Amino acid sequence: MSSRRFIALGTASQVPTRERNHNGYFLRWDAEGFLFDPGEGTQRQMQFADVSATSITKIFITHFHGDHCLGLAGVLQRLSLDRVPHTVRIFFPASGEKYLDNLANASIYKNFASIERQPVAAEGEIFRGNDYTIEAYRLDHTAESWGYRLKEDDSFSLIPEKLEALGLRGPDVGRLKKEGSLVVDGKTVLVTEVGAEKRGLSFAFVMDTRLCANAYRLAAGVDLLVCESTYLESEKIDAKTNGHLTARQAATIARDSNARQLVLTHFSQRYPNTRDFLAEAVTVHENTIAVRDGDFVDFPKRK
Amino acid sequence: MSSRRFIALGTASQVPTRERNHNGYFLRWDAEGFLFDPGEGTQRQMQFADVSATSITKIFITHFHGDHCLGLAGVLQRLSLDRVPHTVRIFFPASGEKYLDNLANASIYKNFASIERQPVAAEGEIFRGNDYTIEAYRLDHTAESWGYRLKEDDSFSLIPEKLEALGLRGPDVGRLKKEGSLVVDGKTVLVTEVGAEKRGLSFAFVMDTRLCANAYRLAAGVDLLVCESTYLESEKIDAKTNGHLTARQAATIARDSNARQLVLTHFSQRYPNTRDFLAEAVTVHENTIAVRDGDFVDFPKRK
Repeated sequence: MSSRRFIALGTASQVPTRERNHNGYFLRWDAEGFLFDPGEGTQRQMQFADVSATSITKIFITHFHGDHCLGLAGVLQRLSLDRVPHTVRIFFPASGEKYLDNLANASIYKNFASIERQPVAAEGEIFRGNDYTIEAYRLDHTAESWGYRLKEDDSFSLIPEKLEALGLRGPDVGRLKKEGSLVVDGKTVLVTEVGAEKRGLSFAFVMDTRLCANAYRLAAGVDLLVCESTYLESEKIDAKTNGHLTARQAATIARDSNARQLVLTHFSQRYPNTRDFLAEAVTVHENTIAVRDGDFVDFPKRK
Repeated sequence: MSSRRFIALGTASQVPTRERNHNGYFLRWDAEGFLFDPGEGTQRQMQFADVSATSITKIFITHFHGDHCLGLAGVLQRLSLDRVPHTVRIFFPASGEKYLDNLANASIYKNFASIERQPVAAEGEIFRGNDYTIEAYRLDHTAESWGYRLKEDDSFSLIPEKLEALGLRGPDVGRLKKEGSLVVDGKTVLVTEVGAEKRGLSFAFVMDTRLCANAYRLAAGVDLLVCESTYLESEKIDAKTNGHLTARQAATIARDSNARQLVLTHFSQRYPNTRDFLAEAVTVHENTIAVRDGDFVDFPKRK
C-alpha cells in the first residue's frame, strides 16, 4: 500500500443514502493517520476500508454540523476500547468546544484514550510535525467552518549516481552532507552538485464553504485537493444560500490555485450518481475524480 | 405489509462488523412506530429498511452504553430535518438523562421536532396507549438497564357466521353489542354466544442483562420476545462477567416464560455467523430466529 493514501470513508452531505454514508475521510501519511470530519457511521466505514482505530493519530473537524462530527462519539469510544496507546490530537473550531464535550460524553464508557484537544481560533500554522506543518483557515459557511492544509517540508536528496561517479561512499557522504563541501582528489565538490531539492507533498481539505479567498489559499499548489461539491451548477443559487460549492466552483478553485489533483465529494442526496459532477468539473480542471465510498487516491508521484 | 412487524436494523453488540451494524430495532405497530436502542448508523439502516423518520412515534432506550444509543443524535436531528409533525416520546433510564442531553446537543442544528421525554425510574406501567400498555422492568447489566414490554388490550369480537345464522345485522348487532343481550324471535341471545374474547398481542424487548427474574417477567406469555444473545454457552462465564446472556439462556427465558416466538440478536463480533446461536437455542425453544440486519418478523397470527 502507498504510504500516502487518501481514503473516502463516506461521501454524503447532510443525509446518508443507500450508496453513500455520511462524510468521513482518512489520510494515511507515512506513520500518521489523519481522520477528517467523521460523520455518523464512520466507525463502521473504517472497517469496510480496513482502517483501524489504532492508525488514527490526528482528527480534524471542519465544523460542527452533524454530518461532519456525529461519528466522533463512536470513534473516541473505539480508541478506548481498542486501547490505542498513543496520544490522538483533535483539531476543531474553538467556538464549538461544547459539542466536542457532548460527543466525548454521549454515553457511558470508561476512557482509556489519551486525547489532546487543540482548538483552532487563529488562522495560520496550527501544528508543526517532524517534517510537515498543518495550517488552518476560516471558510464561509452557515456555521463556523475551517479548512486544513498539510505541507511536507521541502528536502534535499543526494543522487546515488552522481556520488558513484565521484567514487563517494560511506563516511565521505555523511561529511559532504554535513559540511556542504568536500575535497575529492584535490577538487572541491559542493553538496549541491550531487543532490537536488525535492519539493514536499501537500494536501488541502476544503469542506463546507461558499467560494471565498481562503478556499484558494488552502488549495494553492497542493498535490491533492479534497473539496466539497454539494451541488451542480444548475443549483448554484441553492449552493450559495446554503453555504456550499458547485462542482464547477470546486474545479475553478483547483484550476486557479494550481492544485494538481482534485477530489470531489460531499454530494447532496438529490443526485443519485456522481457522473454529472465529474462531467461538470473536468471542463474546468481535467485532473479530477468524484469519489464514492471506499475509493482511495494515492498521492501523485513527483518527477 | 403487515401492520405488526418487527424489523432488525442492526444486530451487533459493542462493535459493528462488516455484516452487522450496531443495534437498532423498529416495531411497526398499527399507526405507531417504536424505535428501540438506536446505535450508531441507525439513521442509515432505516433507509436500507425503508423506515422513515416520520414513522417513528416512540423511542425506547434500554441503557446508555454507546451501542444502544449513539444513533439517537442522528435520529433526533433527522426528525427535525424531515419536519416530523407529531410528538415523539422518548423512554429512557432516568439516571442517564445527561447522556440524552448530550446526544440531543451533539452538534449544531435547529430543532423543529416535538420531543417529549419520559424518564423511567419506577417499574410497572410507563405508558397507556389507546388500546395497549407499555411496562418497564429493571434488568441486571453492568450499567442500569431496563427491559420493555408492550401488551395490547384483550378485546371481544363478534363472529360474522354466528350473527348470520341468527339473521342478525345492522342496528340489531350494535344493540346486542351495547346491551349484552337481545331478544330474537322470542329467544334471548347473549352477546357471549355470538362472539369471542380475543387476547391482545404482546411483545417484549430484553436487551443487555444477565439471567434475572425480570427477564422472565418481561417475556411472560408474549407473542414475540426479542432477546439479546451476545454469547454462546461456551463463553457463559464471559457472558456473566460482562452482564450478558448466552443463546441457551435466552431460549430458556423464552421457554419458561411461554413466549411464542424468540428472536435472538446483539451478537458479539467474535462470532462470524449466527448459525451456532440458532442451533444452541432451538434445542431449548424451537420457535426461534437469529436475525441478520434487515430481517423482519411479522407477528404470529392468533388462531
